[in-house]
Amino acid sequence: MTGTTLDDYTDRYAQRMRGMTASEIRALFAVASRPEVVSLAGGSPYVSALPLDAVGDMLGELITRHGANALQYCVGQGEMPLREVICEVMSLEGIDASCGASPDDVVITVGAQQALDLVSRVFLDPGDVVLAEGPSYVGALGVFQAAQADVVHVPMDESGLIPEALEEALTAVAASGRRAKFLYTVPNYHNPGGVTLPEDRRQRILEICQRGDVLVIEDNPYGLLGFDGDPLPALRSRVRDGVIYLGTFSKTFSSGVRMGWALAPHAVREKLVMASEAQILCPSMLSQSVVTAYFQTMPWQEQLKTFRTLYAERRDAALSALADFMPPETAWTHPGGGFFVWLTLPEGLDSKAMMPRAIHSRVAYVPGTGFYADGSGQRNLRLSYCFPPPERIREGVRRLSSVMEQELELRATFGATASDHSGRTDTPSPGLA
Amino acid sequence: MTGTTLDDYTDRYAQRMRGMTASEIRALFAVASRPEVVSLAGGSPYVSALPLDAVGDMLGELITRHGANALQYCVGQGEMPLREVICEVMSLEGIDASCGASPDDVVITVGAQQALDLVSRVFLDPGDVVLAEGPSYVGALGVFQAAQADVVHVPMDESGLIPEALEEALTAVAASGRRAKFLYTVPNYHNPGGVTLPEDRRQRILEICQRGDVLVIEDNPYGLLGFDGDPLPALRSRVRDGVIYLGTFSKTFSSGVRMGWALAPHAVREKLVMASEAQILCPSMLSQSVVTAYFQTMPWQEQLKTFRTLYAERRDAALSALADFMPPETAWTHPGGGFFVWLTLPEGLDSKAMMPRAIHSRVAYVPGTGFYADGSGQRNLRLSYCFPPPERIREGVRRLSSVMEQELELRATFGATASDHSGRTDTPSPGLA
Repeated sequence: MTGTTLDDYTDRYAQRMRGMTASEIRALFAVASRPEVVSLAGGSPYVSALPLDAVGDMLGELITRHGANALQYCVGQGEMPLREVICEVMSLEGIDASCGASPDDVVITVGAQQALDLVSRVFLDPGDVVLAEGPSYVGALGVFQAAQADVVHVPMDESGLIPEALEEALTAVAASGRRAKFLYTVPNYHNPGGVTLPEDRRQRILEICQRGDVLVIEDNPYGLLGFDGDPLPALRSRVRDGVIYLGTFSKTFSSGVRMGWALAPHAVREKLVMASEAQILCPSMLSQSVVTAYFQTMPWQEQLKTFRTLYAERRDAALSALADFMPPETAWTHPGGGFFVWLTLPEGLDSKAMMPRAIHSRVAYVPGTGFYADGSGQRNLRLSYCFPPPERIREGVRRLSSVMEQELELRATFGATASDHSGRTDTPSPGLA
Repeated sequence: MTGTTLDDYTDRYAQRMRGMTASEIRALFAVASRPEVVSLAGGSPYVSALPLDAVGDMLGELITRHGANALQYCVGQGEMPLREVICEVMSLEGIDASCGASPDDVVITVGAQQALDLVSRVFLDPGDVVLAEGPSYVGALGVFQAAQADVVHVPMDESGLIPEALEEALTAVAASGRRAKFLYTVPNYHNPGGVTLPEDRRQRILEICQRGDVLVIEDNPYGLLGFDGDPLPALRSRVRDGVIYLGTFSKTFSSGVRMGWALAPHAVREKLVMASEAQILCPSMLSQSVVTAYFQTMPWQEQLKTFRTLYAERRDAALSALADFMPPETAWTHPGGGFFVWLTLPEGLDSKAMMPRAIHSRVAYVPGTGFYADGSGQRNLRLSYCFPPPERIREGVRRLSSVMEQELELRATFGATASDHSGRTDTPSPGLA
């Protein structure tokens, strides 16, 4: 980005206020990666907390001793030793043989992203309805968009997906003469919501979906990164059928190995394998070997504790800075784990319209509209506390608060148009407020 | 596979003679991997020829020194240093700045397989026509099938795709009121054909496709593994537009890192990146770092010579064994590089029907029908010489020849049904005979 000033970027952002697509979020991350900007935008795990010397030694030995295997093709489903590791990891959240989980039904994928894409490829036809939390993971919305599916958002509150709202959404979809193929949900430490579904809601949501014959796609990247107590039992641990569980090693080990998985009912599993073979032939044997060796030979549960402690400190830094600096009428969630806080701005502010000034003030976030398929989320934004150290998080929140104060002042002085580049009239946010 | 005898497999194969899908080929590879079987089925590169100690040291140091980067997410298009390496590699086949090639237009993918899948996702709608050589790479047929496209095979001879046949195919498709979206072609050391397109045909084929407004997908996994002389200039080196070039590191370095790429016209490149992000978010940073370090710091051109010498010896072993053992009326191609020989069996033999007896005689191959979308190829089979050492190749060809002799004897004694489990009447092979 040599030769491009921050103001150039600000201008480019100012020109693009009317929509925020995946490619815009990508561009945003490019700006946010400039060292002078405190980025609260990206969701990158803090992999520097890994024992890199030991991982390096492990990897070197792996290639020297088993390179002929680790550098070769493998089967499309992925290798059995890693599928066994995956079952061991899932057992921490109650997914084990007692609910029918088996390495035979695990399909290893390029991150959970590919798993979701495969599920969508197998199940979705253009025009199908997918239910998803509002807001929802931006990468999932990209998959559903590519599949030409219609996303119907189901509202959340501080306790995640609202069961009554799910029932209403199902009724409304049925009344429109269509059928929801599945519910896509992130029950733990939601991205971007930062909220977690309590036990009682889990059961009710499963019952609603079973009654409505709706498949549940349970996406659980952050489940082992809770800050208090034991991991919550997964939805999949409660039922044998009706749930496809998606997991990833991106947050518990490394996002750079791109290793995730789907645990699918037996009849679905083979379809996913066939779809994956058409897409990538087979997952990386190198990455599988690395992950397997890491989980078989290194103290991964201790490392999880290290990650939890680290992210909890950063969550604390974010929450205390929000409490100290945010203008009145701002609301935010209180994550019990994971990477993200979801903000609802005071009435009249637009997170996307505010973006150029935020970047100019050297702080970055992701505007809320990126997490909705329907243009909602103008008054929301996502703050990530996973990557910067606590003092930078505090500084970032301080800068953001200043920007918001300035916007509110401009607004009070000159009216709505001064701070609303889009010219769009404000609509109440359907988010987590 | 404990507790399952070879005969069980033979029986299972005997039950499945009527069709051979990707999953059957997968099952075949599982049988073929038994140590007593000489597998001439798989296309695995002989990665043991790599300097594994040195690669292991390189990888260990990479993680120890740069793990925070190598174990992290990256951009969806893939990282610039590897895209520069890719341009250096492509320049060996004449693809360079003079024909408009640039790292900006390279998209890094999970093997060339994902690149082909992305191209298909971007260009193909259900019912579209794809032209492909007959026979064609089985993994490509899987992609086109997943895209619900219709594959029209264009015949080859010992010099690859026949330009006149391509013109006829285009005319026939147009006469049927449809349009061919693209030509998928493997010009060098074809999989499974083992043939190579000479210079004059390259130009003619490009002209035909330009005239017909047909995009060319040039898939070139084996181009740097020619046994005589310099690499042939790629189709892409002759034109700036109209060709999407697919490459891979699977055969020049490691198949286990799953690293390939597409070089696409600028307008297409961004679409491929968007599609890839929806599919896998980003390619593995670990794999990218490993490949980049290997090509930047190790003597990769020397290693290519090692691979070429090794595969040339194995090709020689295959060809001399075929000449020594094969029954009369058997024909085969004479590959100048790559991994594969394509056989045409004497009239009356069916490669799929013969499969159980071949496995029973402890030799494996891939029946020709796997390489056609239209059920052709009964009298053909693919022999891979890339993985077993020369003496095993010779033994495998000897075993296969015996099986064929027995089949021919049975046929002479009892008539067609004795050796034709499918009950299908023989049709002349449209293959490379």
